[in-house]
Amino acid sequence: MNEIQNLAAEIKKFADARDWEQFHTPKNLSMAVAGEAGELVAEFQWLTADQSLRSNMSPEKLKDVEFEIADVAIYLIRLADVLGIDIADVVIKKIAINKLRF
Amino acid sequence: MNEIQNLAAEIKKFADARDWEQFHTPKNLSMAVAGEAGELVAEFQWLTADQSLRSNMSPEKLKDVEFEIADVAIYLIRLADVLGIDIADVVIKKIAINKLRF
Amino acid sequence: MNEIQNLAAEIKKFADARDWEQFHTPKNLSMAVAGEAGELVAEFQWLTADQSLRSNMSPEKLKDVEFEIADVAIYLIRLADVLGIDIADVVIKKIAINKLRF
Amino acid sequence: MNEIQNLAAEIKKFADARDWEQFHTPKNLSMAVAGEAGELVAEFQWLTADQSLRSNMSPEKLKDVEFEIADVAIYLIRLADVLGIDIADVVIKKIAINKLRF
Repeated sequence: MNEIQNLAAEIKKFADARDWEQFHTPKNLSMAVAGEAGELVAEFQWLTADQSLRSNMSPEKLKDVEFEIADVAIYLIRLADVLGIDIADVVIKKIAINKLRF
Repeated sequence: MNEIQNLAAEIKKFADARDWEQFHTPKNLSMAVAGEAGELVAEFQWLTADQSLRSNMSPEKLKDVEFEIADVAIYLIRLADVLGIDIADVVIKKIAINKLRF
Repeated sequence: MNEIQNLAAEIKKFADARDWEQFHTPKNLSMAVAGEAGELVAEFQWLTADQSLRSNMSPEKLKDVEFEIADVAIYLIRLADVLGIDIADVVIKKIAINKLRF
Repeated sequence: MNEIQNLAAEIKKFADARDWEQFHTPKNLSMAVAGEAGELVAEFQWLTADQSLRSNMSPEKLKDVEFEIADVAIYLIRLADVLGIDIADVVIKKIAINKLRF
């Protein structure tokens, strides 16, 4: 089993144990992705480009950013899993399309 | 090299070939994640929960959703790469924290 | 009738004429706000702070930004209207709270 | 002075008193709009369409939603003000365009 499928299985196990599948419709999960992406962008909203570099972040700030990235990833992986979409596969396909466009 | 690192390398190669590193500050990439998450949630905004299931989506709609998921993933993976953050690692850590909370 | 209520009435008339009330649940409208906010932030994602100033924007870019601001406003005003919330009132209340916090 | 201009003046006064103009570039404010829109959509992510109606919300939930709407409005009004954009004007223009499209 590859890395993203493994994470998807962990996330599903966590949700199932709490009876949360009922909430995990694709519609709701797309909202959760957007909600967490909002928290992620909020971490950077008052920083300059320079201040947003890892070397200029405090350890606490970096940890906050790490967990916001994790939250977006968790819901994105869960959404793809519920829809039967292979993220690695569609990423590779999208890069190929972008190569033709740009 | 694991799966997500492999995708990160592909995305970096694509950006480098177009001289886009200059735009790929963490701040800007967090905005790109939020922008793409907005397009993803927009795919689902007028659907009922039922209509958002894979079995009820047209092949065209599913393809649109796949590419929006890919776009969010591309910028999220790129952001983590630029910040030196291992997505799989922080996802596993965040699930462990969530297990204590819920 | 005040300015925002007047806009809300125009937006409602537009939606009613197309039989769109059925789609305008608070849940769906919150998604539309997030979707349009994603398009708005995308307009600025590759600009520096300086390039994002009005004086440094092309007329075409400014027009794009104006319409993205309009789109967020339209769905935010519609959401508040559907929920019976007076935006001016809650903005004034929130500023008062912020004065105590900051 | 009309209603939205009046709110913009209040928000500006609040920001000026805290020396926050320096942070209020259009780029940063577009991020703040997206961040707050993320918090708004998160309020609705696990609710059904029915549960999202005002009549089915608890007073506490309604208050949370009111303040999230206020937060999006505050940054959207501030962004428009900083860019010299009249929200009511662009909303009316956008509705006219939408009438031709739909």
